[in-house]
Amino acid sequence: MNNLRRSTKLLLATVLLAGLGTASFAKERVYTWKLATTWGPTLSPFIDAPKNMAKMVKEMSNGRLVIRIDASNKHKSPFGVFDMVKGGQYDMAHTASYYWKGKDITLLPLTTMPFGMTAPEQYGWFYEGGGMELMQKAYSKHRMLSYPGGNTGNQMGGWFRKEIKTLDDLKGLKMRIPGFAGEVMAKLGLAVTNIAPGELYTSLERGGLDALEWVGPGMDIKMGFHKVAPYYYTGWHEPSTELQYLVNKKKFNKLPKDLQVILETAMRLSAYDMYIENYAMSAEAWSKIAKEYPNIKIKTFPKEIMDAIKKATKEIIAEKSEGNALLQEILASQNAFQAKARPWTIMSDFIYLKDNME
Amino acid sequence: MNNLRRSTKLLLATVLLAGLGTASFAKERVYTWKLATTWGPTLSPFIDAPKNMAKMVKEMSNGRLVIRIDASNKHKSPFGVFDMVKGGQYDMAHTASYYWKGKDITLLPLTTMPFGMTAPEQYGWFYEGGGMELMQKAYSKHRMLSYPGGNTGNQMGGWFRKEIKTLDDLKGLKMRIPGFAGEVMAKLGLAVTNIAPGELYTSLERGGLDALEWVGPGMDIKMGFHKVAPYYYTGWHEPSTELQYLVNKKKFNKLPKDLQVILETAMRLSAYDMYIENYAMSAEAWSKIAKEYPNIKIKTFPKEIMDAIKKATKEIIAEKSEGNALLQEILASQNAFQAKARPWTIMSDFIYLKDNME
Repeated sequence: MNNLRRSTKLLLATVLLAGLGTASFAKERVYTWKLATTWGPTLSPFIDAPKNMAKMVKEMSNGRLVIRIDASNKHKSPFGVFDMVKGGQYDMAHTASYYWKGKDITLLPLTTMPFGMTAPEQYGWFYEGGGMELMQKAYSKHRMLSYPGGNTGNQMGGWFRKEIKTLDDLKGLKMRIPGFAGEVMAKLGLAVTNIAPGELYTSLERGGLDALEWVGPGMDIKMGFHKVAPYYYTGWHEPSTELQYLVNKKKFNKLPKDLQVILETAMRLSAYDMYIENYAMSAEAWSKIAKEYPNIKIKTFPKEIMDAIKKATKEIIAEKSEGNALLQEILASQNAFQAKARPWTIMSDFIYLKDNME
Repeated sequence: MNNLRRSTKLLLATVLLAGLGTASFAKERVYTWKLATTWGPTLSPFIDAPKNMAKMVKEMSNGRLVIRIDASNKHKSPFGVFDMVKGGQYDMAHTASYYWKGKDITLLPLTTMPFGMTAPEQYGWFYEGGGMELMQKAYSKHRMLSYPGGNTGNQMGGWFRKEIKTLDDLKGLKMRIPGFAGEVMAKLGLAVTNIAPGELYTSLERGGLDALEWVGPGMDIKMGFHKVAPYYYTGWHEPSTELQYLVNKKKFNKLPKDLQVILETAMRLSAYDMYIENYAMSAEAWSKIAKEYPNIKIKTFPKEIMDAIKKATKEIIAEKSEGNALLQEILASQNAFQAKARPWTIMSDFIYLKDNME
């Protein structure tokens, strides 16, 4: 071996070492991920959360982690995203935990619960009250990680064509109200139905539906329900609906540490930001509705009805959590946190708002 | 030159090229920044916001942006941080905008205003209602950028040794209440004083002070005021106190784009997180105080007093904003946003809380 050949070998080894020294190989690799949403491509602000998240991730990682968003029009399976992430066809999803109560009832309370926490109370539970740990515990058997994905704040109780004065007014009432709240309302004697979003307005207008629940002014205004149902009831069933990111755990573990932190930071921020975006959208939309449709009345269910709803809620929760230790643990943790946080909520924001009403 | 010496030179050149090849020079450069806080090193949760922010930045940048936190015990100048960032001795600060009302009254309303917005309303104003743009406009003449830095939520009105029933009860009352709220209270006839934090407890205990305002249960509990002043008044003066990051604009502009986004993302997230941390701390602390000191009474000022406070607030704002077009623009923007957001706050969270009080 002559000196030149020897030094060439030395040189190649040095290039490799130099590469490792300035930046590891893993660090420079580009990761391309796919995210599936339960929502369509224009359902703002829901769709904005994963979009903003992916934008932040790309910029912060200098293009080393790129996340493609497939909305439901692309993958054609809004309620298949859980299985697609679990099975690894998608790396992550943007959805809501309570949609999976049929697969695993333990996941139900991770989105919201009737008569449960408000948004700051719930974020407090997630991040300061043990909620994140319980959420990972619930999702671990599905080989996924779960993170808050954006909050709608308090959801309205729904649009009603007629005023509701007694429990009897509810009997046989045809209402679109899905999920857990639908089970509660069914117990009160309503005819709970599910109708595709595109047909809701016409059904409500023509009396195929007497009432329906959607989200809040910010998202309801585009549906036009205020034009045909003048009673807008305040909410009880979803005081703080937190959407979720689901992430395939195996894929997450393969990311370098810095990209893991970038992804987690962007998800967490996009969730808070969606809460604020939706808050502002609802403020703007309600102001517009109230001006253009002064006939619309904000109503609260009478005490008789609220008591019946509370009773039915308690009974259904008791049924569902029977023999499910983890679900009981999650509910107990939420209730304990809420019991501590609520007095503070009352003495701070609530009394302040009360004393400043004109 | 023998072969060995030549190959060594070649080798050195190659190391340099290899470094440039895997990652550009600018990208790999390490930036070391210094941040000065107005607070001491243990004032939780205020100090947690910049600490968490710096930790996220370091991890997300893979050590390419490192921010050293100097608390006030280090730089010895809690109220000098504005000038130190403006002058470039520090790259950034964690402080509150309303401390600088003496330097520039335009900066006053960027933290909170009496009878102003709640936390989600205010974040809505910052991020969806033009607040961020107005904040940059206000800081541009100081050659700084400003970002939300963490929210205390609603602050309590203060600890009082005696119950306040009439306006006369306030005359001559010795109270520690700094800043704008202090000016308002002085107008109502209180003897507003400022006393070093370390002496507050003893002054209140011995009657050197009749009342004082601090933050809320989460931070107040460590001061022990509840042991000597049993009337805890609800807040009106700081419904949503947002701390601020100040960043030297020239230094910021020198950062590569990805580090700019990493820094902005981490600041924004640490602010929301501090709001939630403080919310949970207050919930926990109030639960403890209420249990251990059942004699403490939560009180609200009677309407006569609240009306006088509102009137004085309006008068002082009018005086201060006279001839200051930018301050007037900021106040008008805040008022307009609040007027739109408040009805939504009432019909969502407020009514929900009201209907679920036992």
